[in-house]
Formats: sequence, structure tokens, C-alpha cells
Amino acid sequence: VDAEDRDALLAAMEPMHPADIADLLEQLDEGPRHRLIALLGHDFDGEVLSELDEGLREEVIAALSPAVLTDAVRKLESDDVVDLLETLEEPQKEAILGSLTRPDRIAIERAMSFPDGSAGRLMQREVVTAPEHWTVGDAIDFMRASLDLPEQFYHIVLVDPRYRPIGHVTLGKVMSSDRVTPLRELLEDSFRTIPATQDEEDVAYAFNQYHLISAPVVDDNDRLVGVITIDDAMIVLSEENEEDLLLLAGVGDESIADRTLQIVRQRFPWLLVNLGTAILASLVIAQFEDVLAAVVALAVLMPIVASMGGNAGTQSMTVAVRAIATRDLTGSNAWRVVRREVTAGLLNGVAFAIIIGIVGVIWFGNVLLGVVIALAMVINLVVAGLAGVLLPILLDKAGVDPALASGTFVTTVTDVVGFFAFLGLAGIILL
Amino acid sequence: VDAEDRDALLAAMEPMHPADIADLLEQLDEGPRHRLIALLGHDFDGEVLSELDEGLREEVIAALSPAVLTDAVRKLESDDVVDLLETLEEPQKEAILGSLTRPDRIAIERAMSFPDGSAGRLMQREVVTAPEHWTVGDAIDFMRASLDLPEQFYHIVLVDPRYRPIGHVTLGKVMSSDRVTPLRELLEDSFRTIPATQDEEDVAYAFNQYHLISAPVVDDNDRLVGVITIDDAMIVLSEENEEDLLLLAGVGDESIADRTLQIVRQRFPWLLVNLGTAILASLVIAQFEDVLAAVVALAVLMPIVASMGGNAGTQSMTVAVRAIATRDLTGSNAWRVVRREVTAGLLNGVAFAIIIGIVGVIWFGNVLLGVVIALAMVINLVVAGLAGVLLPILLDKAGVDPALASGTFVTTVTDVVGFFAFLGLAGIILL
Repeated sequence: VDAEDRDALLAAMEPMHPADIADLLEQLDEGPRHRLIALLGHDFDGEVLSELDEGLREEVIAALSPAVLTDAVRKLESDDVVDLLETLEEPQKEAILGSLTRPDRIAIERAMSFPDGSAGRLMQREVVTAPEHWTVGDAIDFMRASLDLPEQFYHIVLVDPRYRPIGHVTLGKVMSSDRVTPLRELLEDSFRTIPATQDEEDVAYAFNQYHLISAPVVDDNDRLVGVITIDDAMIVLSEENEEDLLLLAGVGDESIADRTLQIVRQRFPWLLVNLGTAILASLVIAQFEDVLAAVVALAVLMPIVASMGGNAGTQSMTVAVRAIATRDLTGSNAWRVVRREVTAGLLNGVAFAIIIGIVGVIWFGNVLLGVVIALAMVINLVVAGLAGVLLPILLDKAGVDPALASGTFVTTVTDVVGFFAFLGLAGIILL
Repeated sequence: VDAEDRDALLAAMEPMHPADIADLLEQLDEGPRHRLIALLGHDFDGEVLSELDEGLREEVIAALSPAVLTDAVRKLESDDVVDLLETLEEPQKEAILGSLTRPDRIAIERAMSFPDGSAGRLMQREVVTAPEHWTVGDAIDFMRASLDLPEQFYHIVLVDPRYRPIGHVTLGKVMSSDRVTPLRELLEDSFRTIPATQDEEDVAYAFNQYHLISAPVVDDNDRLVGVITIDDAMIVLSEENEEDLLLLAGVGDESIADRTLQIVRQRFPWLLVNLGTAILASLVIAQFEDVLAAVVALAVLMPIVASMGGNAGTQSMTVAVRAIATRDLTGSNAWRVVRREVTAGLLNGVAFAIIIGIVGVIWFGNVLLGVVIALAMVINLVVAGLAGVLLPILLDKAGVDPALASGTFVTTVTDVVGFFAFLGLAGIILL
């Protein structure tokens, strides 16, 4: 790139997959990135845009000349264009929509009419269908005559006269059967339809749970409007997992390609909430200033109780948040899981109470101090187990994503209870 | 189940997918679970075993009579049996292998000879192949004549005379082309082979990155030995994501179906490590007992610095661990990411220094105390950013899964640095 040798660059990038080119652009600094885009010119592949991290798309699209952008977008499949448009601001959206042919634009505007994050946005509109009375031979002849079959498809969907899907047949079955076999006899057991308004998270769950390969999408009248394939579901699944992981850590929709000011802005609110809860914990400590003044050793041991409680709470919480996401923690076993977490907290609490009690006695030569920290440890680990599983369940019931808010709540509870139990017991037992 | 009405039970469970039956078994208590299994008898579906959580498999298999187990396992596909065997202890393994027919047993033992977690374990051995000179008509005739085609397949793999894959054709292309078209003209661009010894994590990455649907698996001599399909890759991807999430929270391979003692045992070592690092932080505080004794307010504010550092460190760390897992953080952009994290830590550090400094001054009416906590905040957030991104990178370089160990290391660093900076500065400025 530095040598501005366009031919050598094209030769080097020719065998690269668009996803790898997108990764390359993400890893470059802004200067070299723009020079690379300028050098590529009309050889810029539209699929690179789909593969790019959302944070960078606007920048890269802004760097493309209108003619290159038109070229790049026209070559994309309709569901990739929808995905691209979702992340862009109005002026860029208009520019891209304007560069499409009229039928494409109408199809895409129809897809965009479904709610964000719904099956309707995820699906592709191109489906291979067959009337329910067709035979294998009819289907093969139809496909040979078709000019615009989808790039990838795995099933032929059988529809009734009102265009409602009644089942589907795998291509493998069609190919391995005689021409006279009715398609109806080859229907798969695993057939499921998906409502266009279903949340994409539920779609991904259904694909993962039932090992679906593709599933027809239907409108409110059960009419076929599109199809979702496993590769789309895989992308949603991996995005949902990433989202949960980042939310649990108190990071929003962040990526390694974001710029410094973006990440500062994104992390600030989470840290601010954390500051609020930390001050809450400090207020608890402040109630016991006289106890702390009398026994400074308490200030030394204080963070141990808080840290153990926070960790144990995070353990319970993560398992619970994950189990809610995979539908393994439901109303019917919630009570049993809560009981189990509390018992586990009690058992680990007793184990660590003994350990830390002994450490406290040896370190400070004060048996009562050992008793105080041991008791505080038991209380805090039981509360951690309880809060760790109960808060995600309650947040989920309240319609809040448990990954979003659980972390802060759980550590606030363990900090407050930990400091209160430890210093409160110290005040009673030691003074 | 309680009424022991077998017919009603079978009628109720008939439409249920094996994955849903497995979920049901997971949510039941041990007593009802065993009664349900006993009631089902020979109608117990082998696929339920594959869908069951690993922690419960042994218990359920032990609850099945040998005859039922044999029946159940014989109906499974070979890769499901391999997956099942991987999680079982020797005696149960032997029982299942013994229940298989001889050719099945040999096939499965061959698959088990590949390393655990490798592509060889993940693949299915049944592949549809064609010599490179075949036409569409040859392929269709061959498939019509075949009796045991795989349940699901998406591509026909073209092989050379030495059985090395040279490309593949989608079934859709085969069906939509004339009988005389050579298969060779229909080859897909996206063709990639996978070495049998490749780690399944890398396999899942390749499927996700290059949007693969299926990929042939080859041995050391590039000969075709099997095929991996996107649904296998999707399962691995979701397992890997789950593993990272749980590891980051200091929980091992835990599930909501585990029993209390299992989870106590699993969480204990992580809490023990945390206790060790918490004591390390306490030792730092102990060095400043005289400072704390002089200004008790320090003990009140201490947890704020530690908590903010821990949170900021976790944010940087999670983004870094995730980016390493998705190959977005590599040697070539590591330095830039480190610089960005440090700058972000500095900016958020300054912002929170101002906030907490003002809070400190108002709360305790001591300007110098506000200065101390403000300075400590800046130092700790910068260190948190640095440690959060540097430790995962170094662990990854050292060959350790960064999700496993980063969490503890990062909070240890932020605790130790936070307490040292805060109390050290207090000793210098306030005394």
C-alpha cells in the first residue's frame, strides 16, 4: 500500500475472502485504511462492507466514492443490504437505497418494514417452493428451467394453494428418489415455521435446539414470505452470546476496532453506575467509623469479605444468566435452583469461614476477630448465592435483559451485606 | 407420571422433540426423573441421550436397562455416539460399545482415535463423493441407486483418483443444471478442506468467518476421511462461547442441572484462588495501618478505588478476551489496542477523579483527601486499562486460555495498585 502499487495489491488481495479483507481494514490505522480503499477503487468488494465491524462501516462507506458504492451494493444479496442499512444513519441509507434498482429497492424497503431484530429482517425472500401435488420430476424440471434460484438453498418448501407452507423436502431426498415419487412422501419430520415478527434471539434458539437447517418464515395469515437458513441463525447466536458476555462485563456494544473516544463514552455510564453503588457501600462503612477507629485490623480484612462475596455472587449469577438465555432455567425449576445455590453458598461459606478464621487468628492473634470474619464470610456467601440467582430471575420476569443489570446489582448486594455483616458483627463482638 | 399412566404419558410426549424431552428430564428432580425413565421403557429415544446435559448423562444411562440402552444407541448416528462416549466413564463406554454391531463399533473406535476436541471427532464419516470427470446425470443416477445416503448433506465432494477432495458442488446447482453438465464446471468458490487433527475451535471459527455450510475433512495425506457440516460447527461455537463466559466468571464446566455438591466442588478452587489474591491485597493495606489509624475516612473510601479499578479492568479484559477468541486482536494491532486502552483509562480516570474528588471534599470537608482519592483514581484506571488488555494478550502468547486466568490476575493487579496508590498517597499527602 505504501508503494501505491495497485496491481501488486490487487494480486495480493485477490485470493483473500471478503471477511479477511474486512479484518485487515479493521486492523489498519485510519490513514492506511483510507489509502487502501482509494487504491482498490472499483475493485472494492461489496461483501467486505457486510463483513466489516458496525463501528467502521460508516467511516468506510464515507470513504468510498458514490460510483464505487453503487457498484459494491448492487452485487450484494438482499438480506446483506438490509443488514447493512440497519446500522447506518439516514443520509448514508438514502445514498445506498438510491443506488439500487427499483425492484430491489422495493424488496428491501418491504424487509425493513419488519421490526428491527425480527425474523422478517433476518430472512431472505428468495424461496424455492413447489405445489403440494408435484413429483420429484416436476421439481427437477422446474429447477432446471429457473434462471434465478437462490445461491444456497437446502429445502424445497411445499405450499398449499393459498401459499401456506405445509412441509419441506431436502434436496438430498429429491435427488435420491425416482422422478415419479410425490414430494409429499418425502417430507421431513423436523419441519417448523417461524412467524415473521418473532425475535431473532428466539429464532436462533429454535435452530440450535431443534438442529434446523432452514425454516420457512410466515406472515400473520400463515403465508410464506421468506426463509431463514442456519448460517443466518449461527450469526445471530454468536452475536447474542457476545452481547451477553459484554453486557455482563459492563461494556455495551463495543468492538476492538472502536476508537478511543467511542470506548470512553461507552464505558463511562457503566463506571458511573458502579461509582454510585461503591459509594453506597462506603456509606455502610461510614456507619462503623468508630469500630474501625478502635480496631484498624478490620480495615485490613474488610476487602476480603467483599471480594469473596462479589466473586461467589458473580459465579451464581453467570450460571443463572446463561441458563435463562438457553431456556434451561424456567419457572418450573427456579425454586430448586435457588435452594441449590443457597445450600452451595452455605457449604462454601463454612469452608472459607474456617480457612479465613484461622488466617485471621494467626495474623492478628485475636480469636474474636477470627470469629467475626468467619461469620461474615458465611453470611456473605449465602447472600451471594441467593442474590446471584434471584436477581437475574427477577430481572427476567420484569422484562429486563438479566445480562444487562445483574452484575451491578449482585455486587452491590454482596458489598453492602458483606461490609454490614463484618463491621456490624465486629461492633457487637469486639467492642 | 405420578399416576403412572404410561399410555397417556406416551401420547403427551409423542410430539415432543428429543431436545425438549432432555430439557424436561433436566428440570425434574431425581425421583420423578427415574420414574419417568422407567415408565418410558423401550420407548426411550436414543437422541434424548445426545441432547442431555453432560452432567446428567451418566445418571440417566445408569437408570436405563441394558436392553433399552442397546435399542436407544443403535438408532443413533455415528457422530452422536462418539459425542456420547466422550463424556462417559469406562464401564459405561464398554457397555455402549458392546451393544453396537461390529462395523459400527469399528467405525466409532476409529473416530475415537482422533484427539479429543479435534475435527476428526466432530466429523461424520458418511460423505457423498463423485469422481472429477462425472456429469450432473452421473451424480443423480448414482444417488438414486444409493441405499444409504447420509440423512443430511449439502454438497457432493469431487475427489481425484487418490481420493483427495478437489472441490465441491451444491445440490442446488446439481439440480438446476442439465444432465450433461460436468460437475467440474459447477464447483463452488468457497471450498476449503479441514485437517482431521485441527482443533474444533478453529473449525468453528472457519465456518463462522467464511460462512461455510459443509467442509470435507482430510487426513495427513490430504485424503478425504469425512465431512463437517454447519450444524456441528454451530454446536461447537455455542459451547466455546459458553465456556468463555463461564471461565471469565470463575465457574468451570458447570450447568444448571448439576447437583449441589458438584457445584460446591467446582466453585471452591476458584474462590480459593480469589481468597489468595484478596489476602495479597490485604497485605498491601496492612502496610498502611498507621495511615488508616490516623485517618479513618480512608477506610471508608478505600473500596471505591478498588471497585472502580476492578470494574474498569474487567471491561478492558472482556473486550480483549473476546477479541482474541474471534481473532480480531492479533500481534499486528496489539500495540494500538494497548495504547487505546491506556488512553481511555486516562480519560475516564480524569473524569472520575474530578467526580470522586468533589464527593470526597464535600463528604469529609478535607481538600487534601479529595486530591488523594482523585490521584489514586487516575492511577488505578490507567493501570486497569493496561492490565485488562495486556494480561489476556500475554496469557494467550503463553498458551493459556485468556478466559481462564485473566479475571483473577486483573482484579489482583487493580486491587493491589489501587490500595497501594490510595493509601501510599494518603501517607505522603495527609500525614
